Amino acid sequence: MTILELRPIAEHLLDAVRSLSADGVGVTRASYGAGETAAADFLREFAEKEGLQVANDRAGNIVFSLPGAGSQAGVWIGSHLDSVPQGGNYDGLAGVVAGLLCLLRQKRTGAAPATPLRVIGFRGEESAWFGKAYIGSGALFGKVTPEDLELKQRTTQQSLAECMTEAGADVAAIRAQEHLLDLSQVSSYLELHIEQGPVMVAKELPLAVVSGIRGNVRHNRVVCIGEAGHSGVVPRWLRRDAMFAVADLIIRLDDHWRVLLERGTDLVVTAGVVMTDPAEHSISRIPGRVTFSFEARSKSPDTLEAFYQLMQAECKAISRERQVRFEFDRRQRSDPAQMDPAVCAVLADACRARGTTFDVIPSGAGHDASLFANAGIPAGMLFIRNQNGSHNPDEAMEMDDFMLGVQVLDDAVEKLSGTAAQ
Amino acid sequence: MTILELRPIAEHLLDAVRSLSADGVGVTRASYGAGETAAADFLREFAEKEGLQVANDRAGNIVFSLPGAGSQAGVWIGSHLDSVPQGGNYDGLAGVVAGLLCLLRQKRTGAAPATPLRVIGFRGEESAWFGKAYIGSGALFGKVTPEDLELKQRTTQQSLAECMTEAGADVAAIRAQEHLLDLSQVSSYLELHIEQGPVMVAKELPLAVVSGIRGNVRHNRVVCIGEAGHSGVVPRWLRRDAMFAVADLIIRLDDHWRVLLERGTDLVVTAGVVMTDPAEHSISRIPGRVTFSFEARSKSPDTLEAFYQLMQAECKAISRERQVRFEFDRRQRSDPAQMDPAVCAVLADACRARGTTFDVIPSGAGHDASLFANAGIPAGMLFIRNQNGSHNPDEAMEMDDFMLGVQVLDDAVEKLSGTAAQ
Repeated sequence: MTILELRPIAEHLLDAVRSLSADGVGVTRASYGAGETAAADFLREFAEKEGLQVANDRAGNIVFSLPGAGSQAGVWIGSHLDSVPQGGNYDGLAGVVAGLLCLLRQKRTGAAPATPLRVIGFRGEESAWFGKAYIGSGALFGKVTPEDLELKQRTTQQSLAECMTEAGADVAAIRAQEHLLDLSQVSSYLELHIEQGPVMVAKELPLAVVSGIRGNVRHNRVVCIGEAGHSGVVPRWLRRDAMFAVADLIIRLDDHWRVLLERGTDLVVTAGVVMTDPAEHSISRIPGRVTFSFEARSKSPDTLEAFYQLMQAECKAISRERQVRFEFDRRQRSDPAQMDPAVCAVLADACRARGTTFDVIPSGAGHDASLFANAGIPAGMLFIRNQNGSHNPDEAMEMDDFMLGVQVLDDAVEKLSGTAAQ
Repeated sequence: MTILELRPIAEHLLDAVRSLSADGVGVTRASYGAGETAAADFLREFAEKEGLQVANDRAGNIVFSLPGAGSQAGVWIGSHLDSVPQGGNYDGLAGVVAGLLCLLRQKRTGAAPATPLRVIGFRGEESAWFGKAYIGSGALFGKVTPEDLELKQRTTQQSLAECMTEAGADVAAIRAQEHLLDLSQVSSYLELHIEQGPVMVAKELPLAVVSGIRGNVRHNRVVCIGEAGHSGVVPRWLRRDAMFAVADLIIRLDDHWRVLLERGTDLVVTAGVVMTDPAEHSISRIPGRVTFSFEARSKSPDTLEAFYQLMQAECKAISRERQVRFEFDRRQRSDPAQMDPAVCAVLADACRARGTTFDVIPSGAGHDASLFANAGIPAGMLFIRNQNGSHNPDEAMEMDDFMLGVQVLDDAVEKLSGTAAQ
């Protein structure tokens, strides 16, 4: 058999998990929350029926392997189970399903590799829920701090510590920032993921090998504080309008961004959340308080730091000019990561061997793979072309592209593992 | 007795209504809602105990007079009972209480004027609740349209028609835009109101006579529609970021505003409500949808119209440049109003006779008085100095200033009514 024969199973798994987490608009699988747990439980049941071995790690992630896989070093395939609110079905899930298909192919053909393949479904990759990304993978590397554990879920206001506890994670160990993954078990890390961007569609590439992953610097919540007042009576020179101040900041950052792009800098800038205060805002009231989020992403750590300092300087200037002040929550930072050239070469060779067009491109989005890369593990990523962007319910993917990616991934696992004599 | 002896009653009424509508932060008296009704019911009970005549008009406003007051023409004193959410206690209420004190002075001294004084407590003056101002007074002049009646209350989502019906208004007549006030009963209209601005505090003026009232042009809800997307993967040139577009609009309007002020134009500009979509926004998502309100106020109808056209032109330019579009709800417009010079002179003379410093200033905020003035009724307003701005819980007023204003108002009523032989 070839792995392509497992396509009906892939369709079944993707459809079933979509149904379990449908929200009427897209899918909603909250980090360490209900939809994510439903996905994990469903995949566990499926895998156990197929005779695979399933375990939870100490961060609550789910790990699949062939029965009897020991503790020796081997290839890991991972991606995440959660989604943004009203997100798409393939962002994360496609990679976990791809890994499961590789395991299943090994199981069904009896062609177990010389070193064991492990497939991990991470929890908590999306920052949308707790304002922090890579929680499930980060916890494995001691990167979830006691402060992080106090972060509140956007909807339920439950703390991350509570939600992780409910998902069976060892919160005491995570709080102590213990390393929960035995690195000696990981010879290399692979991740298949939809691109989430428009580049591959534009270039008509079904697959791409990822060269590196952008890092980011963020504030989940900045509050601009001015002075509320009746909109009819306070003249411009006496106003301390928090909304005009935030608009001013956004447009100054936009101007800097444009200039930096002209110089060839890699950078994207976003204010994903901007809100006057619903408890008190009205048409006839000068906003005294605006909350907003700030995010800059770049392949370059230096660019991230420089742009962050630029943002701080503009806030200071606006504070003086508009008589407001800015209050920042804790700064979040994710380091950019480089994929391993040897692993990239294996993926590229596999693409060539299968006769598919592909390219080597950087990833604008962050991925769990960056944690492995930055921990010194040889890591590689394979992008699948996807339609209609990402983090929105219209996100789409062709199953032909996906199965082509699964085939390349399976080939790469075989190459990186070596195949045992049958 | 002099009207100053009624100060303890004023304090009692203001304190009692504050308690009835306290929300833990300030006061909340929703237009055609609970806090407003509680205030009206309390004042009705008080007035009836004092032997005054109390009635509701067909818009649900409450009208006080001496017993046996006929239908002949007379002076009206009015102001409003509602407040913005988490607003201050004196905005509106002070004027109703001032009117009641004038009536009570007449009742207690038996010095009924030649023509009857009527005091009206308006409902629904604040635009914060339904996105439309002067509902209670506007309904008297046939200015509440069938479309207005479908407006939804910001919190409960009840329609204005439902809320007006609950308050006893004749919604069928209002929908037919009948004139519900017999203008032959109104010889002149007076309104006492806190200034709501910083000018009188800065100039150390306890009282001011209002020369005219700014009008406004508004959209309660404009939606800027771009395209949502993953914040890490869409390059600047492919973005259709609705938040950057709205920030761009605000800063362009701010630039125009500054230039117009330099040319001596009377103008204020506010975006009181700005929100990315809470159902889908996140730190890592390019906002595809931002809702906001737009308001410009000016003493000049031409300025309002010109600035509105400028706003529309900038929206068109931004739509082209940033690949977004703007969707506008129905435009709301309130005409500027001039106070009657003869009534202003009576108020100014009364200020002089009481030996108080005062000035003649324009009103930046809108008031029910503008409806009477624009209906051809001689109208005048007296401002009381107030501290800490308005439309916020810190709004304050000195009782000494208030009672001085009540005394001047009472003198003006006497002058405008003529006094009957005792």
